[in-house]
Amino acid sequence: MRFSPLLDELIKSLQVLPGVGPKSAQRMAFAMLERQRSGGRRLAHVLDQALEHIGHCRQCRTFTEERVCGLCTNPKRAVSGQLCIVESPADVVAIEQTGQYQGRYFVLMGHLSPLDGVGPEELGLDKLADLLATEAYQEVILATNPTVEGEATAYYIADIARSQDVNVSRIAHGVPIGGELELVDGNTLTHSFMGRKVFSEQ
Amino acid sequence: MRFSPLLDELIKSLQVLPGVGPKSAQRMAFAMLERQRSGGRRLAHVLDQALEHIGHCRQCRTFTEERVCGLCTNPKRAVSGQLCIVESPADVVAIEQTGQYQGRYFVLMGHLSPLDGVGPEELGLDKLADLLATEAYQEVILATNPTVEGEATAYYIADIARSQDVNVSRIAHGVPIGGELELVDGNTLTHSFMGRKVFSEQ
Repeated sequence: MRFSPLLDELIKSLQVLPGVGPKSAQRMAFAMLERQRSGGRRLAHVLDQALEHIGHCRQCRTFTEERVCGLCTNPKRAVSGQLCIVESPADVVAIEQTGQYQGRYFVLMGHLSPLDGVGPEELGLDKLADLLATEAYQEVILATNPTVEGEATAYYIADIARSQDVNVSRIAHGVPIGGELELVDGNTLTHSFMGRKVFSEQ
Repeated sequence: MRFSPLLDELIKSLQVLPGVGPKSAQRMAFAMLERQRSGGRRLAHVLDQALEHIGHCRQCRTFTEERVCGLCTNPKRAVSGQLCIVESPADVVAIEQTGQYQGRYFVLMGHLSPLDGVGPEELGLDKLADLLATEAYQEVILATNPTVEGEATAYYIADIARSQDVNVSRIAHGVPIGGELELVDGNTLTHSFMGRKVFSEQ
């Protein structure tokens, strides 16, 4: 079935969205044309604006259309003296949703991956070194993903932090809360044994 | 977690897409900002153009940016003298994919639903009557959905077609091919019994 050229183009363009294949793209195109013309126009406008103006925070590298993002300008966030290193802005969202962390972030926008041409410079690690040298952070919390690349990146950053005499910690890896031991993979279980702590009564 | 205003706006705007909630919208926004900036801009442009220019075919009412759509201008489609009535452009796609039907279509863009203010006029049934009166169709095939509203719409259109002395048929409803009888609902099974045909050897 051939659609009209413009409709065909719209269905193809919608497939840049992650998780959207030809079938969903077609459904989206029809839904917008049928019921959401004004919402669709608003989306076209905002999308254009966002891609034009949203860049990276000068300090933590997360996405923002401002020079420095809201978390970095908030003075309350400096009190704890903690800096949490994550791979992506989505990780910041996940951590913020726990409400447990009150420090600042540094977003790598990826992980070390020499084969893909992603080295320390692409992750802004020179900027991170400057940040640790100029601001008085007490602790760097490494929250990169527990993958091979994430671990390598964590090791690399730990070296940078130690050279600046900043304490380095890594978030705990082990059996997820609510998970069942028999369903957890061996690697995770090994980590949870190695990371065991003295059992306290409280 | 508060995003920057523009990013927040983008995540909200993406939720006009069907099946996209806050979580997927966030993932889409990040993915486009990280990896698909040019694809995203193209989408913004095409979306704007499509919503500006795509309207309805003057003859069959399907979506097209042309005055009359490709199916209606194709003379081969007139040979069979058949006109298939469907509820939406997506139904045209589904039928075209079977490759079995060679006639023309008429797209209602909905079904009769008086409570929602959708009457014969909103479905272009006056236009359909004109079409049947002026062009020599031999058969009207009713392919509205087998729902209460779809059936009511089919009955209404059958009356129009009969008043113009055009044969009317309804697509068969019954057990889907590859389906199992024990899993089919009673209503469908009733239909498949009522619609039974003399068993032929071929």
